[in-house]
Amino acid sequence: MTQSNSGISSSPLEKSLRIEVVAAIDIGGTNTVFGLVDEKGKVLLKESIATEHFPIPGDLVAVVSDHIRKALAQFQNTYELVGVGIGAPNGNYFTGNIEFAPNLKWKGIVPLAKLFSDKLSVKAVLTNDANAAAIGEMMFGAAKGMKDFIFITLGTGLGSGIVVNGEMVYGHDGFAGEIGHVIMFPDGRQCGCGRKGCLETYCSATGIKTTYQQLTTNNLQLTTSNQQPATKNKPPINSKYIYDQAISGDKNAIEAFNYTGELLGLALANSVAYTSPQAIFLFGGLALAGDLIFKPTIENFEKNLLNIYKNKIKILPSQLNENDAAIHGAASLIWKEIK
Amino acid sequence: MTQSNSGISSSPLEKSLRIEVVAAIDIGGTNTVFGLVDEKGKVLLKESIATEHFPIPGDLVAVVSDHIRKALAQFQNTYELVGVGIGAPNGNYFTGNIEFAPNLKWKGIVPLAKLFSDKLSVKAVLTNDANAAAIGEMMFGAAKGMKDFIFITLGTGLGSGIVVNGEMVYGHDGFAGEIGHVIMFPDGRQCGCGRKGCLETYCSATGIKTTYQQLTTNNLQLTTSNQQPATKNKPPINSKYIYDQAISGDKNAIEAFNYTGELLGLALANSVAYTSPQAIFLFGGLALAGDLIFKPTIENFEKNLLNIYKNKIKILPSQLNENDAAIHGAASLIWKEIK
Repeated sequence: MTQSNSGISSSPLEKSLRIEVVAAIDIGGTNTVFGLVDEKGKVLLKESIATEHFPIPGDLVAVVSDHIRKALAQFQNTYELVGVGIGAPNGNYFTGNIEFAPNLKWKGIVPLAKLFSDKLSVKAVLTNDANAAAIGEMMFGAAKGMKDFIFITLGTGLGSGIVVNGEMVYGHDGFAGEIGHVIMFPDGRQCGCGRKGCLETYCSATGIKTTYQQLTTNNLQLTTSNQQPATKNKPPINSKYIYDQAISGDKNAIEAFNYTGELLGLALANSVAYTSPQAIFLFGGLALAGDLIFKPTIENFEKNLLNIYKNKIKILPSQLNENDAAIHGAASLIWKEIK
Repeated sequence: MTQSNSGISSSPLEKSLRIEVVAAIDIGGTNTVFGLVDEKGKVLLKESIATEHFPIPGDLVAVVSDHIRKALAQFQNTYELVGVGIGAPNGNYFTGNIEFAPNLKWKGIVPLAKLFSDKLSVKAVLTNDANAAAIGEMMFGAAKGMKDFIFITLGTGLGSGIVVNGEMVYGHDGFAGEIGHVIMFPDGRQCGCGRKGCLETYCSATGIKTTYQQLTTNNLQLTTSNQQPATKNKPPINSKYIYDQAISGDKNAIEAFNYTGELLGLALANSVAYTSPQAIFLFGGLALAGDLIFKPTIENFEKNLLNIYKNKIKILPSQLNENDAAIHGAASLIWKEIK
């Protein structure tokens, strides 16, 4: 009989009959979503807790690990935990640390992979959420079998994961793939990173909101700055609202999507000049706007592509399920490592 | 006794005692340079012929192959040819073809690797000249032991080779690494590729010439367009001339280098957001200008870098010998393949 950290005893025979699963953990500024996922991507458990309730990372690790152990026990030894995959902002694949994440309350360097590995006695691997989702697209989504692609998340910001020759590009320091912080206009909109004109200040839920607000204010022309008008007695404007307005024919809302697609198309055409991918996948709220975002993006993409790349690179919607994408991403990260 | 295509007879024993060499061939619009290179990078033979004298690619292949065979014979069986490496504009690593190269007289698709392989009865590999030089830097230059770096050639245009995790990035189609064609200004200077505002229209020998000419003409402000003044009774302006002027204190020449460095620094900072390299190497005529180009480039590079990348990525001069770089590049391409 062996006694594992998860508190489950089993004979070697019992162990060999169990189905392997991984723990998938997605750390967000607001919530941490975690679950158990098998090799085919089936989500066997999914839970969520508020990240901000845990000012000390070790406390969150303890609680999440405890939930995972209990869940495994509830399944009555059907499953064997073989690894932990973690997606987290500023997650460094090489060190397993979250490093200076501006959107988390945990400051400095947090050795999250080691904390989970120690608690659950299995290998734990960490990367940023966009990289994890890109691997998810490769294992469980539309990038199956593709060796060269770029994955873009259009959320509050713009995240990205780059796959070259079947491998995630981590760079020498673990921080490659920050396409959202390519500077489009050196004197452009103020970015949360402290610089100006980053792609994500235009092409993201936040970016399209700024664009729409500029367009709907008579006094303001559409500019590359992020000056926003004072809003009085107006409904809250977010990307869903702008989408609804566009669908009902509002010219400013349509123009906001066109402008977003124009810049995204240009930025993606430039991206091709680096890694010449087979496809670029768009994921996240804005990507769900369908033709409203894809049409201007693809049009401006093709227009700005170098001749040798024209008409052979697809811009496609991600096939990851919006609800399970984070879990699938974190799970695929560790599955890719193990298998 | 075996009879090889190179016309050299030898016993198996003699063959095993011979030193392995590769043929290195660099196809340029004007000249084709070729030679024999051993595994340590020693150039045993170097010759040059005019590319444009051969309207039919097969004729050039025949003549170059003949020279190589004769050279091997002259060395009296000391060397054994084990492969051919070719650097060529629009060279596609995957197909071994030169595909639609605008700067060559050979139109359409030219199966150059196959032509050489057939003639010399050894494996032949082809890629574009900048990729080949990047591999040369990795095997024989300052990138030895580096797994992630970017190599930039500042010549008539701006070429680039990107190495990720120790491997050249070829992309899905063999055409990755065209950083010179990243669009900096959508309405910028006219580029030879047919589009406007490509990086190489600013940061190259051609680009700095345009910049300098704009600066030295009273009627013209420095602009992002490539409008050039009419020149009457003036000495020929090239990057060497601008360098000499800058060294002797000419403010416009110094400003031309500063402007080139400003844009190059920004473009390289953006490049880091893709692959987060350990270093970026600058090669070619402009890179030989030393501080004049490196100082403004590095200053603007650091200024424009995302926080997580600051102060850890080096911009360095290539250590490839300017004269042998093309040969070393082509040789390292095939050595990397064989070893």
